[in-house]
Amino acid sequence: MGDCLIFAAGTTYDVPRPPREGDYVIAADAGFQTCRRLGITPDLLLGDFDSMAEPDFANILRSPVEKDDTDTSLALKEGLRLGYTAFHIYGGTGGERLDHTLANLQMLTWLRRQGARGWLYDRRFVYTAIQNETLTVPKTVEWGLLSIFCTGIDAHGVTLEGVQYPLRNACLSAAFPLGVSNHILETEARVTVTHGELLVGWQL
Amino acid sequence: MGDCLIFAAGTTYDVPRPPREGDYVIAADAGFQTCRRLGITPDLLLGDFDSMAEPDFANILRSPVEKDDTDTSLALKEGLRLGYTAFHIYGGTGGERLDHTLANLQMLTWLRRQGARGWLYDRRFVYTAIQNETLTVPKTVEWGLLSIFCTGIDAHGVTLEGVQYPLRNACLSAAFPLGVSNHILETEARVTVTHGELLVGWQL
Repeated sequence: MGDCLIFAAGTTYDVPRPPREGDYVIAADAGFQTCRRLGITPDLLLGDFDSMAEPDFANILRSPVEKDDTDTSLALKEGLRLGYTAFHIYGGTGGERLDHTLANLQMLTWLRRQGARGWLYDRRFVYTAIQNETLTVPKTVEWGLLSIFCTGIDAHGVTLEGVQYPLRNACLSAAFPLGVSNHILETEARVTVTHGELLVGWQL
Repeated sequence: MGDCLIFAAGTTYDVPRPPREGDYVIAADAGFQTCRRLGITPDLLLGDFDSMAEPDFANILRSPVEKDDTDTSLALKEGLRLGYTAFHIYGGTGGERLDHTLANLQMLTWLRRQGARGWLYDRRFVYTAIQNETLTVPKTVEWGLLSIFCTGIDAHGVTLEGVQYPLRNACLSAAFPLGVSNHILETEARVTVTHGELLVGWQL
């Protein structure tokens, strides 16, 4: 079983992890146009078609216009339902709707709580959420940027290694961005949180 | 005493609340160029000048290149130190660094915890943080967008009135964006949280 790739209606920058054999590709609403532009045929088109006319496409899942979910979060739920546990989200940032970006970042934590993991691709950056674990991030460029954020209840046992500003068993709060804008100095950085969750973003 | 206006190095969209008599204007690093472009002379230029050469300017506060704060958070701290309690932040979003945007959003909560309040201006949107209180948001455009987010510990007693999707005494978690993309239907919306903090963004 491959990964689930979701193309949302925000800005799609690079696609560092393009679809492979066995992957499942979901276009969320106007993300369908991005797929078309990239020459990718999605396996499913999900949307309420309030911002785009419904195209002629074989496999469409219509979402209600009035709902408690965004089309992207519905796409993640559909992918989970089908058994996928690794999600690559393109077009989930940028555009004119920072609130949608924030919603997608929160969905990374939501995915982690379901035992899955998501990667949200922004311009030259990718974000993921970790929970009571260690994440290893390879250095891809000199002075590669790395930012970590507590996004909920205080995160304890935060250790950052291989970076310009290391941390050892620290506590991070969502009310002060202590972990923004670090640099990876060694061949890889290690981000650990023993009690809690962190949002981690790094330069690709 | 007026408000404190901060011009940061991100993208500056409109300036709906330009400087007035009695305000204090701080340019944070490359935000100085935005001030120049807008014909605004800041009262203070604060920066580490790692991304811009230090200009010829009378009132400069040099920040260290290696620090636990961003230049924007240092500007907020300096404004607080001078006694200001209302902060308008321009150029704190956009650009190529979503992590800086997230840091600035977290500083809104930090400010609220200091008894102050900040407004972070994005493209046609503004964001602020509330804590155990009610915020009234006027409708400025038809179907004006309103999004609320729990950004820390679960927020309890969340009530949303005057909107398309009202809430009554709900609980919001930072791990699911239930409050994204609402619409203001009445002349104003009211956002209440009785126990906790919320990030609130709306269309200007």
